[in-house]
Amino acid sequence: MAGSGYQVHAAFGAKLAGLGETASDGIDSMERDAQRLAEAAAQALMARDNASAALGIKLIEVHPGYARMQMTVRSDMVNIHGTAHGGMVFALADTAFGYACNTHNKIAVASNCSIDFLRPTLLGETLTATAVEQAVIGRNGVYDVRVENNKGELVALFRGKSAQIKGTVTEAATGGV
Amino acid sequence: MAGSGYQVHAAFGAKLAGLGETASDGIDSMERDAQRLAEAAAQALMARDNASAALGIKLIEVHPGYARMQMTVRSDMVNIHGTAHGGMVFALADTAFGYACNTHNKIAVASNCSIDFLRPTLLGETLTATAVEQAVIGRNGVYDVRVENNKGELVALFRGKSAQIKGTVTEAATGGV
Amino acid sequence: MAGSGYQVHAAFGAKLAGLGETASDGIDSMERDAQRLAEAAAQALMARDNASAALGIKLIEVHPGYARMQMTVRSDMVNIHGTAHGGMVFALADTAFGYACNTHNKIAVASNCSIDFLRPTLLGETLTATAVEQAVIGRNGVYDVRVENNKGELVALFRGKSAQIKGTVTEAATGGV
Amino acid sequence: MAGSGYQVHAAFGAKLAGLGETASDGIDSMERDAQRLAEAAAQALMARDNASAALGIKLIEVHPGYARMQMTVRSDMVNIHGTAHGGMVFALADTAFGYACNTHNKIAVASNCSIDFLRPTLLGETLTATAVEQAVIGRNGVYDVRVENNKGELVALFRGKSAQIKGTVTEAATGGV
Repeated sequence: MAGSGYQVHAAFGAKLAGLGETASDGIDSMERDAQRLAEAAAQALMARDNASAALGIKLIEVHPGYARMQMTVRSDMVNIHGTAHGGMVFALADTAFGYACNTHNKIAVASNCSIDFLRPTLLGETLTATAVEQAVIGRNGVYDVRVENNKGELVALFRGKSAQIKGTVTEAATGGV
Repeated sequence: MAGSGYQVHAAFGAKLAGLGETASDGIDSMERDAQRLAEAAAQALMARDNASAALGIKLIEVHPGYARMQMTVRSDMVNIHGTAHGGMVFALADTAFGYACNTHNKIAVASNCSIDFLRPTLLGETLTATAVEQAVIGRNGVYDVRVENNKGELVALFRGKSAQIKGTVTEAATGGV
Repeated sequence: MAGSGYQVHAAFGAKLAGLGETASDGIDSMERDAQRLAEAAAQALMARDNASAALGIKLIEVHPGYARMQMTVRSDMVNIHGTAHGGMVFALADTAFGYACNTHNKIAVASNCSIDFLRPTLLGETLTATAVEQAVIGRNGVYDVRVENNKGELVALFRGKSAQIKGTVTEAATGGV
Repeated sequence: MAGSGYQVHAAFGAKLAGLGETASDGIDSMERDAQRLAEAAAQALMARDNASAALGIKLIEVHPGYARMQMTVRSDMVNIHGTAHGGMVFALADTAFGYACNTHNKIAVASNCSIDFLRPTLLGETLTATAVEQAVIGRNGVYDVRVENNKGELVALFRGKSAQIKGTVTEAATGGV
């Protein structure tokens, strides 16, 4: 993971380090297994996702069908208006979507995405993208992603459709479940 | 332009260098002016568009309501499948869209974009995005972008909606028209 | 309203009849005014909306930025598969969106809509569409609509973008506020 | 067909009646078979498509991956602005899309559709929707539909994604090919 240049958010790193230990008796084992799988899948993605690493995207939180990620707008990400290039905002949202739809450890790819740009983002601002599963029917899923700025203002709304293909994200996890 | 790191495609650079000289008597002057404006706007965009420059995106051809751009998939652009990250394919298409909708020298920004991913793209492949204006009604425009690989196969279909805001892309051009 | 053929859902009709009476001291007057305006706008829409009336669409509930509507799939609404024509499901969702984005009593029109069809709907089933405002920035709004069947299963997800134009939905309401 | 209330456009009806007779020696037999199949599939759709019939939608032209249809805006199709309800414009475009993606005689259903509304349409105007196949990759297709008014002005742009499922549209056609 270090080698990939992927930055793990400190709090989440600690959580990853203590996989399983956080589970209280009150959480049933199916939920705990689903959460483990989501975290293991996220780790496997992080280790190999060059593009997100190059953009400095950090994973903040992951649950089954859910991912929250952050990216700070750098000078090589701005367009002619001095604001974040739409492609960069999309890349952040798309990455959160990608992590969320792979939390079930069945490889899922994006088939269609749409994004509404609502506010410009300035150089140096940190964007947070939160992806939430809306539906998984058969092999197809729909995920909504909200992208917000430092002030909690909505910057973009993204909707992604995923299709599961053959294979698992992480073998270790499936081995253990 | 050199300072921005933006790579101008050789053939297009030559065309830019000879602005106006290519106009034959058969092309009426309104069309020639519109083409000049499109090229001047593209030059102005290229000089300031850090994000596209960082992705190595090259402008191949520009006309009123039209832009064609290329990007080669680098190792820092691939996802966990070893194929181009959706965000990178989107960024290329979005850039072609951005150039096309600014060719009229009225600043236009993206309000909504959607993309269908049809084929994966491997590391090292060169993608070509061609943006074509479908409609401009009032201040709103719709542009379709086809993204193709080296073999001419369709990789993605993108549709972008633009909204004109106040201001011009290049003052020089408006001064000269 | 009777003349338009629009069917008002009984519970909502009662609510409309008692406009303002339901406001308790605990609801502040701005909220109460916003709710009155939403209800008055919905009444004005109902009185003139031939297309929705022809489809038998009923308004169930309306609040600022929110509308819930129902439609039962008739034999003249089915396609070759014996299931609801996509255009009919869209029409229901689009209507809920239209009511929700006009609750502020500034005329708003749809600029772009997208819909994901997740499950087929059989003849005789009743669909419920719930539209919720996601953002209103300047004159532009984004609304998400969930369409569910009798069993509460998700049938379609719709996202609509609105643009406010000049004018108000109902003069009476603006006069009273 | 008469029983379904579906109105066949006169010129196209004549063409259907003379299935096969129009093929000149210059058209190769594969193309001729594909065209026959498209026409047979369209006939099969027309015979069972209640919703489109109820809207008075007429089929004007069909080819492999292509369909052109018309609808006249009736008083029961207008919204509060006295213009065509978005759901009705969508229904026309969606129907053209549905016919186009079923021309290969493999049953295809819509998975996602988006529409941009560009101009209002008045009561009494006739809209023409032209659907053109952009891509079919595996079981998934993308179709673009342009909707124009009497004056040839663009009213809406629609994009539909289809997914082929099991089954054929018409058994007769597959038997004959």
